[in-house]
Amino acid sequence: MVNWNLMKLSENLTTTIEQMEADSARLKEQACAACAETWEDRKKNQTPQCQFGENGICCRICSMGPCRITPKASRGICGADAHAIAGRNYLRMAAAGTAAHSDHGREIAHVLHKSSRDGNFQIRDEQKLVALAHEWAIPTEGRDIYDIAHEVAETGLLEYGKPFGSLRFLKRATDERQKVWDETGIAPRAIDREIATAMHMTNMGNTADAEALVKQSLRVGMADGWGGSMMGTEFSDILFGTPTARTTEGNLGVLEREMVNIVVHGHDPAFSEMVVVAAELKEMTDYAKSKGAKGINIAGLCCTANEVAMRHGVRMAGNFLQQENAVLTGAVEMMCVDVQCIFPALGPLTDCFHTKFVTTSPIARIPGSIYIEFKTETALDQAKDIIKMAIDNFQNRNPDRIFIPDNKQVANVGYPCEQIIKELDGVTNSHVDALGSYRPAIDCIKAGVLRGAVAIVGCNNPKVRPDYSHLEIMKELIKNDILIVATGCAAQVATKSGLLSKEAKELCGSGLKRVCELAGIPPILHMGACVDISRMMLLATGIAKDWGVDITQIPVVGCAPEWMSEKAVAIANYVVSTGLDVYLGIEPQVKGSSQMMELITEGTRKITGAGYIINKDPHELVKSIINGIEAKRTALGI
Amino acid sequence: MVNWNLMKLSENLTTTIEQMEADSARLKEQACAACAETWEDRKKNQTPQCQFGENGICCRICSMGPCRITPKASRGICGADAHAIAGRNYLRMAAAGTAAHSDHGREIAHVLHKSSRDGNFQIRDEQKLVALAHEWAIPTEGRDIYDIAHEVAETGLLEYGKPFGSLRFLKRATDERQKVWDETGIAPRAIDREIATAMHMTNMGNTADAEALVKQSLRVGMADGWGGSMMGTEFSDILFGTPTARTTEGNLGVLEREMVNIVVHGHDPAFSEMVVVAAELKEMTDYAKSKGAKGINIAGLCCTANEVAMRHGVRMAGNFLQQENAVLTGAVEMMCVDVQCIFPALGPLTDCFHTKFVTTSPIARIPGSIYIEFKTETALDQAKDIIKMAIDNFQNRNPDRIFIPDNKQVANVGYPCEQIIKELDGVTNSHVDALGSYRPAIDCIKAGVLRGAVAIVGCNNPKVRPDYSHLEIMKELIKNDILIVATGCAAQVATKSGLLSKEAKELCGSGLKRVCELAGIPPILHMGACVDISRMMLLATGIAKDWGVDITQIPVVGCAPEWMSEKAVAIANYVVSTGLDVYLGIEPQVKGSSQMMELITEGTRKITGAGYIINKDPHELVKSIINGIEAKRTALGI
Repeated sequence: MVNWNLMKLSENLTTTIEQMEADSARLKEQACAACAETWEDRKKNQTPQCQFGENGICCRICSMGPCRITPKASRGICGADAHAIAGRNYLRMAAAGTAAHSDHGREIAHVLHKSSRDGNFQIRDEQKLVALAHEWAIPTEGRDIYDIAHEVAETGLLEYGKPFGSLRFLKRATDERQKVWDETGIAPRAIDREIATAMHMTNMGNTADAEALVKQSLRVGMADGWGGSMMGTEFSDILFGTPTARTTEGNLGVLEREMVNIVVHGHDPAFSEMVVVAAELKEMTDYAKSKGAKGINIAGLCCTANEVAMRHGVRMAGNFLQQENAVLTGAVEMMCVDVQCIFPALGPLTDCFHTKFVTTSPIARIPGSIYIEFKTETALDQAKDIIKMAIDNFQNRNPDRIFIPDNKQVANVGYPCEQIIKELDGVTNSHVDALGSYRPAIDCIKAGVLRGAVAIVGCNNPKVRPDYSHLEIMKELIKNDILIVATGCAAQVATKSGLLSKEAKELCGSGLKRVCELAGIPPILHMGACVDISRMMLLATGIAKDWGVDITQIPVVGCAPEWMSEKAVAIANYVVSTGLDVYLGIEPQVKGSSQMMELITEGTRKITGAGYIINKDPHELVKSIINGIEAKRTALGI
Repeated sequence: MVNWNLMKLSENLTTTIEQMEADSARLKEQACAACAETWEDRKKNQTPQCQFGENGICCRICSMGPCRITPKASRGICGADAHAIAGRNYLRMAAAGTAAHSDHGREIAHVLHKSSRDGNFQIRDEQKLVALAHEWAIPTEGRDIYDIAHEVAETGLLEYGKPFGSLRFLKRATDERQKVWDETGIAPRAIDREIATAMHMTNMGNTADAEALVKQSLRVGMADGWGGSMMGTEFSDILFGTPTARTTEGNLGVLEREMVNIVVHGHDPAFSEMVVVAAELKEMTDYAKSKGAKGINIAGLCCTANEVAMRHGVRMAGNFLQQENAVLTGAVEMMCVDVQCIFPALGPLTDCFHTKFVTTSPIARIPGSIYIEFKTETALDQAKDIIKMAIDNFQNRNPDRIFIPDNKQVANVGYPCEQIIKELDGVTNSHVDALGSYRPAIDCIKAGVLRGAVAIVGCNNPKVRPDYSHLEIMKELIKNDILIVATGCAAQVATKSGLLSKEAKELCGSGLKRVCELAGIPPILHMGACVDISRMMLLATGIAKDWGVDITQIPVVGCAPEWMSEKAVAIANYVVSTGLDVYLGIEPQVKGSSQMMELITEGTRKITGAGYIINKDPHELVKSIINGIEAKRTALGI
């Protein structure tokens, strides 16, 4: 019965997984013709993968080793057992994830610190800036907005390294949550300190106790979600504008055969914002036309795509595993990247095509790229220079090697908390109810019109059939009247398939469909990039506050069907710390330790009230999500 | 000829490697009798070790992997090649090492911040505190010493997380060095920031360029040596007193059959200082006597041993690989540990003996231990409590299972820069020459009486015959009139063998022998713990300044014959950054990347003027050290 329904729904989706895979297969022919390697080849060459690494029981933290846990060796040379080794590896993944996200936040804070009325970067959301200044007790009365901005930036930067106290944003949480964090010792101190502590604890001869390692994973994760990521989001909104609902398109079909295609890829929007701005200048389009192109087409990839889509409506070429495909079209003049999730493979791959591969951050130096270090002071000029470089490259296309798949879908994007509240205000009876709250949504959930909400996040991953788990889970959830909020590559799976269009309401259960119609929203709300999962924490917090229950009680959970990056480990840890269960479709690499498996699935429940539920089968996973949500409803008596 | 000499010298050493090994073999019988496992068993079980890990070409930084470089797979799934993978793994080792050392420094800074006239922790070196306050432009005039201390501590703590600028201690370097660091971009910003940057760069999809990874390894290493470690050393001196030359003893023979033996083990001296103080209280010794012991015997292990030896003359039970041996004597009532280099094996091992295993830091939580979290405010009471616990445990000894090896050696310890200057002042003609300089030593080097100096540092490691490389290299160097400064486990090899005694002059060449006699020093100067390698950087800096040449020119180098910890990777990076060659007896795990091998041995020379020289054969390694020193002499025309 369920299968039949799923099949029927699949047919109705405008772009199916099979169609996406057919496009990839056709692009793979492009690769073969150019003698270029892609991830499919490398995945094959890496199979079978090392089971010691897979199970987390390989230790490389000192040069007495490497050591591995085997039937004959239950401990490494120092005496570290499977639990210590897997726990340390896991904590290091969380620490690296927090470092990545938070360092992104820091970069934006530095840009904010250099913002000026007549510079490259200005304040676009003064209201948000002033609100944050008030929150942080920074004087605003009679001050120039840029003075306020600079003090806010400095205060934010100190969150990375202040010697005393815990993070400012923790105060945004419910009282119940703050109490949990304080009492269990997972309230993070300065962001970088938690990273350093994690690295120290996992260094040779330090912590070997799995529970302590898991607790620090929660804490360092918190430093991401309620620290660096949240600052990244806030400061980006202040600088580049808080996103609003807008319509765009997604999938490789957004590349234009007759235009200069520039793909911006990565995560940190500071430079891509400038590229978008510069590409709209008449001098640039004129130059493009002078070189025989019809214009300049900026398309996004990975989380940079989400950032520029929700602020400018820039179209999205695709998600993580689509980065090579973009080059394989033969129609991309330039791939301009910032940080994170950039395949080093783009170096040799772009060598096989005319595509210029431009790296811009000292954090992501990649062989085979042209390195142009982005500087706040010269950003616009640098953006113009690289756009010119891309335009000059238009003539180098090989017409015989161009294949742009037709598939693209309309996508409604840009639903930060502010936009969600605005949509809810639109359906509120303002004579009876207060505006500016999540109560209309809560009422829908209480009434059962909506059963709950799931945040679907994370990467795609060749460990499974890429994108498939995302799609299967999304379809089943909306069919069951469960609203989805999505970020990152997950949001882009929805984009590519058409699930971000308002028409996707047809795939929903009757309750969610009605909500979509009334509020004029798609059933999956695009909340932004991975760094914006902090928005989801505030959304869940807002719902719990407006509902008047603990956050662990609300029928809202997180799900990462195909996570890949260490950032996902940090995220999963802060989501669990926030009190929300996390459903994972890829196993964390700790299977070799029974203690670690118990700790991440059940042990954290004693600390934060939430844990992981892991299942590689998407159909089984979505069933447990629905069961989890229904169980929360039952417990609430609704 | 050389071999014959070495043999002859070996015979003269009071304790030879063979005698040490015989003691270990006898203690191994103790282990067998107790059905206890030791590192020798685990090493055997871990053999052969994974060559992917050994060569640094196994990547576990995302869950698409693990990936490995093999003949059929030259890249991981993302496209990272051997150079990217080995480079990232190497940088993460350096980052973890810096995190460990620097977090130790931070802990001491927090203790300094809580110091008070009537509290557990007081200022013991006011002069050093005031000098540091002056260096940092902190007002001292008319202020209470504790007010100054607290402001110095806060300023130090901000070095971990200040949003702008580079580290304060960099200004201590020669102008030439500061220029190099600034121009090459390896001057570190805030300590924790460099760790976060390293973790971000090595996160999936960021830096894949080996040279950039090596450069960040230098920078994050600098954040250790000229940041966290240097603060750890300075603040420890201020709190616990700057070490002075004193005589003590070393090796397991320092354990006393008729006394309560408490071994303090780890690195951070804050709590062990308190244990030493408490053990000297009459109430404690009375209590010990009431329980049938003749008194309380505190012995040190690992770097905590070095800390308490050079400040209190506490005797040293041994180095890293001796930690299980101490328990195997059956005569240790308590092993009280703080952080770093603690075998998790101590949990199950102490279960087989009466030894209480006490952990005291949230950084090093270890299963099978009694956890008593050290707090500054209650440190002395906590120290008394655990000493009582150890005393109560005296009666639980199994008389049939006690074997304390006889071997121990006299050791002259405590030669920080201040003490070295003092010794030099003692041989200076004060009518002619200025006091307080390294000129007498420089004159000896110029005259050829001394050929140069080598800093021998680092762990011992079962990858080779433990301690053997240390001893062979030390003996050959002093025979060739090369003065040695030593820290950490290296210093303790010298201790165990008798090379820290003044009589060891007999093993020296005639030049060094004469210097030892004139100055009344041993040929190997004990400069402290691993964290005190920062002292060595200041020593080399002082010599270069007083000589008036660049630091790369002086005939002084570093050597880590048997390094094991990630801390050693951080150290090696800051020593190379400081302009001093580093001779390694254990290969860094990057052999699978030709680029990385080239970069760490030759590539860094273009950046800092120094690099690694790697040779697993100690006799070959010492030859290249001597050649390296002679080449520097030749270049100087001396």
